[in-house]
Amino acid sequence: MRQFVLLAHDVPLDGEFSLDNLAGGAGRLDAICRSITAAFVTSHGIRTDVRVHLVIQDTYTITFDGADLRRLNPDERSTAALVRNALEVREEAIGMLPAEASPGVELYRYGLETVLENVADGTVIQLHEDGESIASVELSALSDPVFVLSDHHDFTDWEATLLAERVARRLRLGPTRLHADQAITVAHHAFDTEGYTRF
Amino acid sequence: MRQFVLLAHDVPLDGEFSLDNLAGGAGRLDAICRSITAAFVTSHGIRTDVRVHLVIQDTYTITFDGADLRRLNPDERSTAALVRNALEVREEAIGMLPAEASPGVELYRYGLETVLENVADGTVIQLHEDGESIASVELSALSDPVFVLSDHHDFTDWEATLLAERVARRLRLGPTRLHADQAITVAHHAFDTEGYTRF
Repeated sequence: MRQFVLLAHDVPLDGEFSLDNLAGGAGRLDAICRSITAAFVTSHGIRTDVRVHLVIQDTYTITFDGADLRRLNPDERSTAALVRNALEVREEAIGMLPAEASPGVELYRYGLETVLENVADGTVIQLHEDGESIASVELSALSDPVFVLSDHHDFTDWEATLLAERVARRLRLGPTRLHADQAITVAHHAFDTEGYTRF
Repeated sequence: MRQFVLLAHDVPLDGEFSLDNLAGGAGRLDAICRSITAAFVTSHGIRTDVRVHLVIQDTYTITFDGADLRRLNPDERSTAALVRNALEVREEAIGMLPAEASPGVELYRYGLETVLENVADGTVIQLHEDGESIASVELSALSDPVFVLSDHHDFTDWEATLLAERVARRLRLGPTRLHADQAITVAHHAFDTEGYTRF
């Protein structure tokens, strides 16, 4: 299982945004959708052993489970529609019980702290330019990696404090600073190739 | 210089498509736009040493030059607008003279054969699951790589014949079959890290 925790700081909590203006009017949801699809899609389908936890304004978390996911296409717009549909049923999420939005998509009424507790069995990894090179680490020792990535904003002080407590490894992917979706693609590739040993 | 030749078989030659329906009504231009942005964008800007040649129905070629490119944002929609703007000035392309669409974007009235002649100084690479592992090749020996990728269709017989004459190397990126934009991201990473040696 590989998991990705994506922090969205500006996506409207009420799901009131136009699918025609994701880059401008929806808190850069275009970029977040690219990260979601990068986590799941391959040329032949969906990675069933992946979960994405999209934390919106530290208030709601939309969890996508590749084992059950349907209707995830690679384009930004249809992925944004899944996010919007989930936000539209947010009132049905009560306590720790999720709202069921669509197959494999659930919305929870909690933020980063609970997400990090829920993934505590995995190895929480922060991608960071000052981290260790991903090629220098025995990836097979990093069981069930959980990558935490922010959107176009840095981690808030609160998020950074939470992360500092939970992060097991800080890894650097390479010499070029990448967008989050590209980093996810490169991280998948590193694990797919078992640390650049199996092509 | 790294170059990417992208073959689009279904994008309408007249540029008559809606930016609101890229996945459905524009020949999967959503996927093509993801490939264009994957070729150019990094977290801090544009790769200036990259060119993309988008060959549409083997009739027009839109060349994006990172050295001059402006207004390329990472989202599908704004990239699709650059493609549409270029197709709208197609009548101004005469003989080998391009139509100037926007900074760094030119439309030419030729197809794959001429594109491959123009990039003949580089090393033409086909990404293929039966190719050599990219990790087994001395990438520094592949000067000025030119990657050729198709859209959701396979290469046509004509394209495959042309390619067979021009391709210097067939490379495999890893065990997982990826979408074209993901393959571009992974190929950049391989070259950025000088064959997984410099992180």
